[in-house]
Order: sequence, then C-alpha cells, then structure tokens
Amino acid sequence: METHAFDQAIALKPLSDGVWQAHTHPAYANMVGPFGGITAAQALQAVLLHPQLLGEPISLTVNYCAAITDGAFEIHARPARTNRSTQHWLIELRQTDATVMTATAVTALRRETWGVDEEPMPYCPPPENCPLPDTPASLPFIRAFEYRPVTGHLPGVWDGSGDTSLSQIWVRDQPPRPLDFASLACISDVFFPRLFIRRATLVPIGTVSMTVYFHAGSVQLQRTGADYLLGQAKAQAFRNGFFDQTSQLWDRHGVLLVTTHQIVYYKQ
Amino acid sequence: METHAFDQAIALKPLSDGVWQAHTHPAYANMVGPFGGITAAQALQAVLLHPQLLGEPISLTVNYCAAITDGAFEIHARPARTNRSTQHWLIELRQTDATVMTATAVTALRRETWGVDEEPMPYCPPPENCPLPDTPASLPFIRAFEYRPVTGHLPGVWDGSGDTSLSQIWVRDQPPRPLDFASLACISDVFFPRLFIRRATLVPIGTVSMTVYFHAGSVQLQRTGADYLLGQAKAQAFRNGFFDQTSQLWDRHGVLLVTTHQIVYYKQ
Repeated sequence: METHAFDQAIALKPLSDGVWQAHTHPAYANMVGPFGGITAAQALQAVLLHPQLLGEPISLTVNYCAAITDGAFEIHARPARTNRSTQHWLIELRQTDATVMTATAVTALRRETWGVDEEPMPYCPPPENCPLPDTPASLPFIRAFEYRPVTGHLPGVWDGSGDTSLSQIWVRDQPPRPLDFASLACISDVFFPRLFIRRATLVPIGTVSMTVYFHAGSVQLQRTGADYLLGQAKAQAFRNGFFDQTSQLWDRHGVLLVTTHQIVYYKQ
Repeated sequence: METHAFDQAIALKPLSDGVWQAHTHPAYANMVGPFGGITAAQALQAVLLHPQLLGEPISLTVNYCAAITDGAFEIHARPARTNRSTQHWLIELRQTDATVMTATAVTALRRETWGVDEEPMPYCPPPENCPLPDTPASLPFIRAFEYRPVTGHLPGVWDGSGDTSLSQIWVRDQPPRPLDFASLACISDVFFPRLFIRRATLVPIGTVSMTVYFHAGSVQLQRTGADYLLGQAKAQAFRNGFFDQTSQLWDRHGVLLVTTHQIVYYKQ
C-alpha cells in the first residue's frame, strides 16, 4: 500500500538539533507554491517530532512570509520556554537562507476539567446527502480533499453577485486518512478565500497569518478517525487590502475540534 | 499635565539594535504580574519604534510564557522578512535571561480597495445610557479602563449559574486617550475571562495566546479619537483546561476596528 500523500509531505528529515529538512509535495501544490495548510502542518510536525516536546498542541500561529519554491526547505523549531505543563515554541522556515514562514505554537499537558461547547454545530444534512461539486478541481491541492459543500461553495459564475461570505462544508482527506494534529492544522486552511464567496470575484489573494486553536485532544482525534468534518467559515471585515476569516471544524457528532482564524491579503 | 499612564507604560528605552528595555507599570497591575493587554502593547510598540518598520500593523500574536515580575524586562524585535509591501516580525520578551513572551507581527503598507464590514455591530444603547458598574474595581488594571457593560458583565454572585459567555461593553482608556495601534492591542485584551461569565465561578485562569487583527488604519484611529469602543466577546469552547474567546471592537459608528481571539488556561 502506498504511503498517503499527506504522510509523505510531513515526513521530515532531521538535519541537526531542532532543524529538519522538508519538501514541497506535488499533491499539495497551489497556484504559486504549496497550499498554506500543508506548510502549517509541516511546521507543526517539526514541533511534534521534537525530542523535548511536552504535551499536545493547544495553539499554532503561522505567518506566511513568502511563496515557497518547489523543492527543499528547512524548519527550525525551538522550545523558547518550558513550564510544568505548558511549552512555548518558536518556529522558522527557511529556504535559500531567507525566512519563508515564522510561527509560534503552544503545547500543553491537558487534564480533564469541566467543559462545554458554546458554539453549536449548525444544522446541516449529513455528508452522504451532500453531493460532490460538479466543477473539476482547478488546482492540485483541491484534489487532496473531499469537499461536500452544504452552502457557500465557489460561485459557478464570477459576476460580482455575492452577499455573504458564509460557507458550510463537509470535508476530509482524499483518500480518507485518520485525523491527527498535523492534518487538523492542514484542514484548518481548507476554506476558500472568503472574498471569492462574498464578492463572486477572482482577485489575487494570499493568507498572511493563520491561528489554530485545538480544542480536541488525541483521544478525541482517534474517536473522529477518518470521518468527515463539518467546517464553517465566515469573514468579519474586508478593508483596504486585508480580510479576516473565522472558522470552526466539528466532527459529525457536533464536537468542536478546532476554532481557527486567518487574515488574508487581497488585491483590489 | 501628567503623562498618561499608558504612555508611561509603553515608553521603551533603546538598549541596542532591536532591543528595548521596558518596565511593568503599577497602573496595569493584575493579580500576578501585569495585565496581558499592556504587555501586548509593549511588544507591539517595540515594532512600531523600530527604524526598519514598514507600514502599519495588520496582525499581532502574543504568547504569554510566564508571569512577568514587577520591574524591568527586555523586548527583542527583529524583522524576519521584509517584502515590497509586507513585513514579518519576530518578538521575544526576556526577563532575567528567561523568555516570558514570544510574539509575531505582520505590518504592511495598505492601499484603498473595495471593502465591506460583514460582522455588524450589535444593537446596543449608547454609552451615555449604560451606567458604570457599581462594584468597585478589584485590581489596578481594571481602573485603567472605563467599562460600561451592556450585557454579560461579571456576575454579582458567584453561584455557578451562567448560561452564556456573551458580553457587550462600551470601553475606553481611563482617563480617555486618543486611540493608537498600541492602545488598540491593549484594549483587545480587556474582556474578562469568558469562564467567569459563562459559569459564574472564579477559578485560576491565564491567557496563553492572543491574536489581534487590525482592520483599522491610522486614519480611522484618528477619526475614532478618545471615544468609546463597543466590544463584544464570546467563547466557542471550554475543554480540558483551555477555552477560547473571540471578540470584536467597533467604534461608535459601527466601523469594525479589530477582531481578536485568545486561548486561555483554566483550572477545574
């Protein structure tokens, strides 16, 4: 059986203490350079592989500094501070001696506490009742996911006619793969740019910064397995070249796995 | 006229290239160490003072690694990547040779584009009709702000009775001070921990990571001046020791200035 493309993409080669070599992967190619979600997953994977790792991911912020050129690059990950139950990470991705991503992460030992999900999963028909889009995927990375849009898919006609940026989709890796923290970071970036939805207009865009908060621990991820996730995304403001998007990912049973945010550059 | 406490707090002394000395300020003292918002403002200020600064803040992520002890600490700010119109910053706060905060920021030259605010300001009575809370401020930093709660203020009785974490408040510096990027970063952390609101229970909490997206540019900030902002905050999930909160700040006229998110540690 062939290794899943995602596992190939996050296979990092140790170079020295806290330094790994990574490669772009053709299955996750975007228009220019790789899909941002896979780079976020690679950055997190350097933390997850680090021999000094404490606990599980709580938050991850990745800042996209420049397009990565197809090929090899280095990931530097360093625990800047280790407390009794939390650990703070500084991460930098470098290619030909230039910084292409800066990132920070927090990992922690979690213990069982009182809890409640306050953001309810929206009512949506089950994934089996949501057909695949009939437009073919225009970019390689889109084929790396199975999208079953509920509402707010890419417009069929780019006529500037949108009136909301809200999308709800069922999504999972294609082919299906059991969820882990790295793939959850990757899927957090799976939502099309809100500008495309809101305005039905194709303009150059690029994510500048993305933050992922992991509400799920590893036990919950095992429970979810390779099943569909329900994703919801919405913008709050589009202003002078930058818009934000705020998103959630639930498992089929309504457990909130991730809340995530990003700010995206756009050209008029 | 005495200098505003906020200006005293963000007055940084240059030590060497990209390194500043900062001090905690008694007006922003929290239960243990300083209020997180003032530390975020100080971290951003190091970027804003940097001679290589390009443009205005777009995003800021601060990770609280450890309580800062009252007194001096160092802020190290370095532009990791400068592009034609965006710049990526790595920031580290150090006290007695240990990292107490890691942070990243993105600044950019903005230009006028198509835009729309999609998250509407909730309908609230004007600040003049919202009385000050009648409970005295229990901590110094609370007195540094004028809070006029609309809904979801701290419970009068801690009886475990909450059913929502939603708060809406009018807020500004006390005494009033014209808004700038540093104070906007500070005010982004002004919302009480959602756990206190949702559960009417006081437990130990501490913000782990906060991200601020600046939708307002400097012209908009000048327009807002020292007027009240409407803030709204809500949690999405409380789970095994960590909860998130997602917030917005509008000016009185409904212009969205900031969207901000944080993840907070809590003890059962």
